Amino acid sequence: MSGSTLGKLFCVTNFGESHGPAIGCVVDGCPPGMGLSAEDIQHDLDRRKPGTSRHVTQRRESDTVEILSGVFDGKTTGAPIALLIRNEDQRSKDYGNIANTFRPGHADYTYWQKYGIRDWRGGGRSSARLTAPTVAAGAIARKWLREQYGVVIRGHLAQMGEKEIPFVSWDEVEQNPFFAPNNAMVPELAAYLDAIRKEKDSVGAKVRVVAHNVPPGWGEPLYDRLDADIAHAMMGLNAVKGVEIGAGFKSVTQRGSLHGDELTPEGFLSNHAGGILGGISSGQDIEVAIAIKPTSSIAIARRSVDLSGAPVQVATTGRHDPCVGIRATPVAEALLAIVLMDHALRHRAQNADVVTPTPRIPGDVS
Amino acid sequence: MSGSTLGKLFCVTNFGESHGPAIGCVVDGCPPGMGLSAEDIQHDLDRRKPGTSRHVTQRRESDTVEILSGVFDGKTTGAPIALLIRNEDQRSKDYGNIANTFRPGHADYTYWQKYGIRDWRGGGRSSARLTAPTVAAGAIARKWLREQYGVVIRGHLAQMGEKEIPFVSWDEVEQNPFFAPNNAMVPELAAYLDAIRKEKDSVGAKVRVVAHNVPPGWGEPLYDRLDADIAHAMMGLNAVKGVEIGAGFKSVTQRGSLHGDELTPEGFLSNHAGGILGGISSGQDIEVAIAIKPTSSIAIARRSVDLSGAPVQVATTGRHDPCVGIRATPVAEALLAIVLMDHALRHRAQNADVVTPTPRIPGDVS
Amino acid sequence: MSGSTLGKLFCVTNFGESHGPAIGCVVDGCPPGMGLSAEDIQHDLDRRKPGTSRHVTQRRESDTVEILSGVFDGKTTGAPIALLIRNEDQRSKDYGNIANTFRPGHADYTYWQKYGIRDWRGGGRSSARLTAPTVAAGAIARKWLREQYGVVIRGHLAQMGEKEIPFVSWDEVEQNPFFAPNNAMVPELAAYLDAIRKEKDSVGAKVRVVAHNVPPGWGEPLYDRLDADIAHAMMGLNAVKGVEIGAGFKSVTQRGSLHGDELTPEGFLSNHAGGILGGISSGQDIEVAIAIKPTSSIAIARRSVDLSGAPVQVATTGRHDPCVGIRATPVAEALLAIVLMDHALRHRAQNADVVTPTPRIPGDVS
Amino acid sequence: MSGSTLGKLFCVTNFGESHGPAIGCVVDGCPPGMGLSAEDIQHDLDRRKPGTSRHVTQRRESDTVEILSGVFDGKTTGAPIALLIRNEDQRSKDYGNIANTFRPGHADYTYWQKYGIRDWRGGGRSSARLTAPTVAAGAIARKWLREQYGVVIRGHLAQMGEKEIPFVSWDEVEQNPFFAPNNAMVPELAAYLDAIRKEKDSVGAKVRVVAHNVPPGWGEPLYDRLDADIAHAMMGLNAVKGVEIGAGFKSVTQRGSLHGDELTPEGFLSNHAGGILGGISSGQDIEVAIAIKPTSSIAIARRSVDLSGAPVQVATTGRHDPCVGIRATPVAEALLAIVLMDHALRHRAQNADVVTPTPRIPGDVS
Repeated sequence: MSGSTLGKLFCVTNFGESHGPAIGCVVDGCPPGMGLSAEDIQHDLDRRKPGTSRHVTQRRESDTVEILSGVFDGKTTGAPIALLIRNEDQRSKDYGNIANTFRPGHADYTYWQKYGIRDWRGGGRSSARLTAPTVAAGAIARKWLREQYGVVIRGHLAQMGEKEIPFVSWDEVEQNPFFAPNNAMVPELAAYLDAIRKEKDSVGAKVRVVAHNVPPGWGEPLYDRLDADIAHAMMGLNAVKGVEIGAGFKSVTQRGSLHGDELTPEGFLSNHAGGILGGISSGQDIEVAIAIKPTSSIAIARRSVDLSGAPVQVATTGRHDPCVGIRATPVAEALLAIVLMDHALRHRAQNADVVTPTPRIPGDVS
Repeated sequence: MSGSTLGKLFCVTNFGESHGPAIGCVVDGCPPGMGLSAEDIQHDLDRRKPGTSRHVTQRRESDTVEILSGVFDGKTTGAPIALLIRNEDQRSKDYGNIANTFRPGHADYTYWQKYGIRDWRGGGRSSARLTAPTVAAGAIARKWLREQYGVVIRGHLAQMGEKEIPFVSWDEVEQNPFFAPNNAMVPELAAYLDAIRKEKDSVGAKVRVVAHNVPPGWGEPLYDRLDADIAHAMMGLNAVKGVEIGAGFKSVTQRGSLHGDELTPEGFLSNHAGGILGGISSGQDIEVAIAIKPTSSIAIARRSVDLSGAPVQVATTGRHDPCVGIRATPVAEALLAIVLMDHALRHRAQNADVVTPTPRIPGDVS
Repeated sequence: MSGSTLGKLFCVTNFGESHGPAIGCVVDGCPPGMGLSAEDIQHDLDRRKPGTSRHVTQRRESDTVEILSGVFDGKTTGAPIALLIRNEDQRSKDYGNIANTFRPGHADYTYWQKYGIRDWRGGGRSSARLTAPTVAAGAIARKWLREQYGVVIRGHLAQMGEKEIPFVSWDEVEQNPFFAPNNAMVPELAAYLDAIRKEKDSVGAKVRVVAHNVPPGWGEPLYDRLDADIAHAMMGLNAVKGVEIGAGFKSVTQRGSLHGDELTPEGFLSNHAGGILGGISSGQDIEVAIAIKPTSSIAIARRSVDLSGAPVQVATTGRHDPCVGIRATPVAEALLAIVLMDHALRHRAQNADVVTPTPRIPGDVS
Repeated sequence: MSGSTLGKLFCVTNFGESHGPAIGCVVDGCPPGMGLSAEDIQHDLDRRKPGTSRHVTQRRESDTVEILSGVFDGKTTGAPIALLIRNEDQRSKDYGNIANTFRPGHADYTYWQKYGIRDWRGGGRSSARLTAPTVAAGAIARKWLREQYGVVIRGHLAQMGEKEIPFVSWDEVEQNPFFAPNNAMVPELAAYLDAIRKEKDSVGAKVRVVAHNVPPGWGEPLYDRLDADIAHAMMGLNAVKGVEIGAGFKSVTQRGSLHGDELTPEGFLSNHAGGILGGISSGQDIEVAIAIKPTSSIAIARRSVDLSGAPVQVATTGRHDPCVGIRATPVAEALLAIVLMDHALRHRAQNADVVTPTPRIPGDVS
């Protein structure tokens, strides 16, 4: 029942703090026989790691992963896969001056109330740094899903502050530091973010994640529906304040005659459902969007209280992302991969015998 | 690991189908010694039950709950509480003509793909009727939270289609069939919905749920954060396509200097966080909003396929809610109650010894 | 995490009290498409039910099961299967005189300490009556295991008090009221038990359960080994004080050269392991033995204390089994079936892709 | 649902293989604020580690533990505690000659059947080396139980082969390499074991573990009874083939008038129950005994098959314990500590409000 474990059959148990000796996770439930090396994982970690452009935090971490167990002769054995990432840049002195205050928008106050302990070292366990093990575990899930089912999981920045980013192509996502599917818009985004950083402020973002080729039938209604578990994983990501599946909040103003996706022998005619009906995948693309709040660490002085209860002003200097939404993209992909792999395994357990019924509607939206 | 169980310490295991002999649930984990009678539960069930106004389905169900276990001499014993609701109005002939087709927007096709079985009786297990046991379990959680911590959980319809409903007062919510916090707007809503029903169509809605007086410290980061578990529960409710905590999707365009709620000795100065920071309750009101898609059962003919894969037209006549969002209100309250009670128990397990640290910021927004 | 749930993928959630309105369970995780009727379950319930001979309790219960959900058109749907058994013979006045005392050997005192509640009605939830839902759930597991894998699960009384019962044949087990695999010994057992009952006393027993045709590969080391989960289930049965797998406590004095079962292409040469090596099934028979304490309800007066802490004498009259071990046989079979089905599903989830490696050693002991 | 996790609220997730880079575990659910250092854990690890006498394996491992997370300023923070033990003596060449065969009594064949992988490096994950992380986690539980409730957990060797070891005193257990509570018997045990080793054979053992000062009320009936969870943990330990609580298999021949422990205001008059009634602790000593099979790795040649299915002879040379039961003692203590702490936390969650009822029977047996 561990609160630090994600997944029920593909189980990721996360450990570590921002400025402790190491972070990592234990991945339990990966089937045996899959090829796996540290390189397979490192690629995704590198997409998330700090310091890759001037638009993200400058903390210096190589985020090098070590596989401690569960892999033998280059293949998974079915045993738990322990992944270790040593913290290298533990400049906790950066945080010394805030050890006695509660930063607005941060979890300082709530951790203090829950645990009676103020681990002031960079947010301790509430730091976004703890998403690195999630990304590492997600890389395993993503590889397995691709090899077993041809599932492709991709994400991109869909909006930064007021700037909506029209989708051009998946190829462009990896060609710029914003995970924007639109290279032409990069200068505008860069200028926008530079201006916000100059104002010592930060800004929110919206990220979209899509899973392609998910077979129909994954999800356990009720209560462990596929959309419910996706929402759990996404809302569990630091700074996320909203989750949408398919039409999301647009559904509020839609009519049933519009929203309900019609079926034809050639495929569904729309995808307002976002690939999930009744909590079960339909074969269409799984469509997820998340709202990410602006970075709480800003250099503008703000009101707060200290540990004695006295009013203070807090400004956070140091190495922070002006828009945490950017680096959230690979994490959201990893989370979707973990949830999907978990449900793939659950489906195999209970429904391995089900002869896939016809008709099978192609997932593609025509 | 039961997929039909919600909660880890306060566990609700749901069973039943829309047109089977009975629906119900087993509630495991309720502490002993709390006064509990069927009446305590019936009140909430009556708010959700069909046939209470012309704006909801006319199916005739008294939704009478029987407590089968776990209560002795009017008090909970600590043993599992089994709740039974017999189905009375099983007019499954209403559905006979659609047994061989997949209704657009419904879970017919995905259940078929997952289980290889077409339980055409009113949606079988995917029916919104299965929310009744959730409401019953939620009534227990709500009572316990109120008696132990003074927690008050309330919900209301916030928007129906294009009609935003300005909040006037909690008192008015129970005074109209829409759960609208605004009696003056009821005629307008009624006319709007009548028109949609006349067009044989349906419409979406937005529901807001608020928990007041939740103590700081509930939630298990990471991954079982309080917001993550709320999102899981809400997205697991039929027809929900989006979940927001606090500022939700408004966070996307907010600056950090606006979003981060400042603290003063007298209280927080805003509540964009929605009462949750780092996945842990802050003592402020827990603020949740959900998007509910329009009812999929509409009388407008729509394209689909039948079990042989041939194209057909499907129109759903019969007794359906033109806006399922209305009756979602008591269910959303129940889900929030279940998640909160679960986390209250989890908090007691791990943190019972923590001396509540000072300073304690009042939860009230000034 | 429900404490009243057995199994992780095949989940049995038990509810009810000895003298409440009903007992039952929800079985979640049964694959769809298996034929299932109340008769399939009733057969096993009838083997456990009271009043079948003078050697067991005379309480009058038909133990008629009703399937409330999860079955449609005679087949499982993949949805939770709720099973209900109404209590009929609730003569709780039998227990009135002991409501204020703690019966030696019973759970009265520990329930009182845990829950602060004295449900004196026939032991409340600690009654052996609560094994009926376990037997009902086990009937489902047993049917599935037989149909999917040809697994046969059988149990018998192996010893009653000092009387060891030599095994003659499985066929004879169902031909006498003791579940003795040895009809010739029945008169001796009957006389022995009559004498004990005349002395107002009770006696312990040993039950053996065997699963035949279990495929190799089931079990999750570590920690959810197949033997560990069997031990959990068996020790969780009322009155059980010991569990053995294979050679059990005989292993203590064995040499490695004797205990380690040799392998040949024709099969294993012995089965000291009891069909489980490293927590995983080997294909040999799963061999389990359990020790069952003597019935605690005896008519001999014994020392105890009452609720005020004063010393009292307690004698329990009424309808009690002089040897609860007899009726434990069908329950132990059911428990083994539940654990095996749970692990069958878990194995399918993680190892569905494993090409069954050669060599495959026949499970039969030659 | 991770199969590699022990406990539901105090969760120990184990990882590693005998000859991989490292072994370890993540302990999730330890309350915040407890003093904890590596030394606290190292002491128990040293009792289990190899090479401490000529009677155990000579593999050279310092078994030095590193705390990677969950501790700050010498205190637990409430976050997961990751514990790492690097493997130092990875002489896997010792095993090279058996890579193609299945050793009798070992898990080689069953792992091969389950995972399709032959990790021949010292048994891979099935090695008793994997009990080290369990001991490390148990040290945390033991410390917490002692500080919170004064619980004392102790174990000793009760029998080695035919040699029963009369209990003299707990003090003597730590004064000899056998964990024997009887120093006078040590020369006899040493000579006995030397003889067995000279014969290239091995022998079984019986270990007793006792928990003193456990408060009444721990355990979740049914199914997660305290005795059930103890049985699960113990039977999950390598080489264990039997588990007894209290009178254990002696119950089979006992009469009810003997077995049922009488209560007086001064205390219980016996402890056949082993401190657990109805699955709940009674306040008396928790009494557990386990049967441990003889070491499977022996130098006597035995029949088996190789990976091609051909018959072979296998003799295992190298560094093996002639009686694995000896080093099982600290592991069994650790397992009991983990289960008890798990149930302590579960009890606090559900029963924190129960006013401890009177009368309270002293746990001491008079």
